[in-house]
Amino acid sequence: MTADPVEGPHVDARIRVRYAESDQMGVVYHANYLVWFEVGRTEFLRQRGFRYRDLEREHGIFLAVAEARCRYLAPVHYDDEVIVRTRVFRSRRRLVTFHYQVLQVEGEALLAEGETSHVVLNRDRRPCSLPEKYAKCLQG
Amino acid sequence: MTADPVEGPHVDARIRVRYAESDQMGVVYHANYLVWFEVGRTEFLRQRGFRYRDLEREHGIFLAVAEARCRYLAPVHYDDEVIVRTRVFRSRRRLVTFHYQVLQVEGEALLAEGETSHVVLNRDRRPCSLPEKYAKCLQG
Amino acid sequence: MTADPVEGPHVDARIRVRYAESDQMGVVYHANYLVWFEVGRTEFLRQRGFRYRDLEREHGIFLAVAEARCRYLAPVHYDDEVIVRTRVFRSRRRLVTFHYQVLQVEGEALLAEGETSHVVLNRDRRPCSLPEKYAKCLQG
Amino acid sequence: MTADPVEGPHVDARIRVRYAESDQMGVVYHANYLVWFEVGRTEFLRQRGFRYRDLEREHGIFLAVAEARCRYLAPVHYDDEVIVRTRVFRSRRRLVTFHYQVLQVEGEALLAEGETSHVVLNRDRRPCSLPEKYAKCLQG
Repeated sequence: MTADPVEGPHVDARIRVRYAESDQMGVVYHANYLVWFEVGRTEFLRQRGFRYRDLEREHGIFLAVAEARCRYLAPVHYDDEVIVRTRVFRSRRRLVTFHYQVLQVEGEALLAEGETSHVVLNRDRRPCSLPEKYAKCLQG
Repeated sequence: MTADPVEGPHVDARIRVRYAESDQMGVVYHANYLVWFEVGRTEFLRQRGFRYRDLEREHGIFLAVAEARCRYLAPVHYDDEVIVRTRVFRSRRRLVTFHYQVLQVEGEALLAEGETSHVVLNRDRRPCSLPEKYAKCLQG
Repeated sequence: MTADPVEGPHVDARIRVRYAESDQMGVVYHANYLVWFEVGRTEFLRQRGFRYRDLEREHGIFLAVAEARCRYLAPVHYDDEVIVRTRVFRSRRRLVTFHYQVLQVEGEALLAEGETSHVVLNRDRRPCSLPEKYAKCLQG
Repeated sequence: MTADPVEGPHVDARIRVRYAESDQMGVVYHANYLVWFEVGRTEFLRQRGFRYRDLEREHGIFLAVAEARCRYLAPVHYDDEVIVRTRVFRSRRRLVTFHYQVLQVEGEALLAEGETSHVVLNRDRRPCSLPEKYAKCLQG
């Protein structure tokens, strides 16, 4: 995984920071960014034409996280509103990598960026291929 | 549910407070106490002779939370070690109520106390009775 | 605290359920409802004319949770969208109680309801009175 | 940051997986591994002779997370007990990198591994140097 700027179409999700997400340093606890990435990913897929929830429920297909990375550039505080900008970084039938940017709403200053890689698993939690319909959605 | 002092045998679990559990007030965020209660409950059941995990896996029986309550008496901080003292407050075949106390390790000052009530559900998430073997364990 | 139906003006906040909030029972883990209540509370205060964040930052005043309660009526799932409806249940200068309802977006079926009581603390974490300006906001 | 096997002295912390940490896939939600890393880090520092809590409280020094990475190799389930094995990967006066392995208790199979990099900040959240006493502790 690399931190290179990625290109390609993105989907933005807005998040209002919860008090629960802060820690005693007075900023958002770092693990919560991975949760925000998940929110971004869900919205990305919705905009691309399917609900991740249906992928699991109707097709028994899971995008299990194989790797996650986040680089923290500037602190985020309770009640801030941020944008999570999600892109597909690389999409193969068995492995999908998403890239995320966390941006300030005003001016879009970059607050954090990261990636998650996902293996495609079937109901038995064995690697499988993403059905073509969904693979196409991801490739945009 | 009531906050009356409860009696009967208890099981103690020790918890070291995580940084993730703190918030910007510099104390443990209140929702995390319910998670600690869950830790106490799991240890209570283990001491009583069964793993809650097996109840779900082998019997398809779930103790779904129907109500939870917590009263916060004194703040708890990152890296503190606390005791979660768990008791069965009331146990019927279809509804089980646990009572919890969060205590300082030194001197056992009461930091918080609460309850959770659970309905017994089967695989189809329908109310059912707890198998007698487990019901007996709970009644001690 | 009581579960009686409350009246008076309310503020609604919408929440899209995160995967992180689900547990292996396939539903939202119960402690997360207290986090949703916090989201509702923050939005309630914003609609009433102030940001809780400013209360802490500018006035050094904290609404520390003294008690929390939640009653769970129907399960909520990943990617569901729910409404958190917040009201002030009781407001005194030193103690404020909020009431919450978690509602299905379509039809407003009641999924959960609860309360949180808060003591007003100053910078030294000592009980104090809510400044009159804010007390008035809460009383509507 | 690299995933190369690291050497040098380590500290082990044991963690019993909480129900709250599971998700609807029936495994531990990936963001929680970063919390476990934090538990490992706190125990590592304690074994090396100081409490991270004192570093913040007494010296006004913070180890803010600048980057985090985790590679997930095998799923972990509710009520599993795992070992978090922590090492210092690189320690400079202004940047410290920890490496973590999550291991099965029996047989020490590798379940996940990752790193976190931390910048040293003072009370004003400005970069500073770790006091020599602590820097020595980290270098072992």
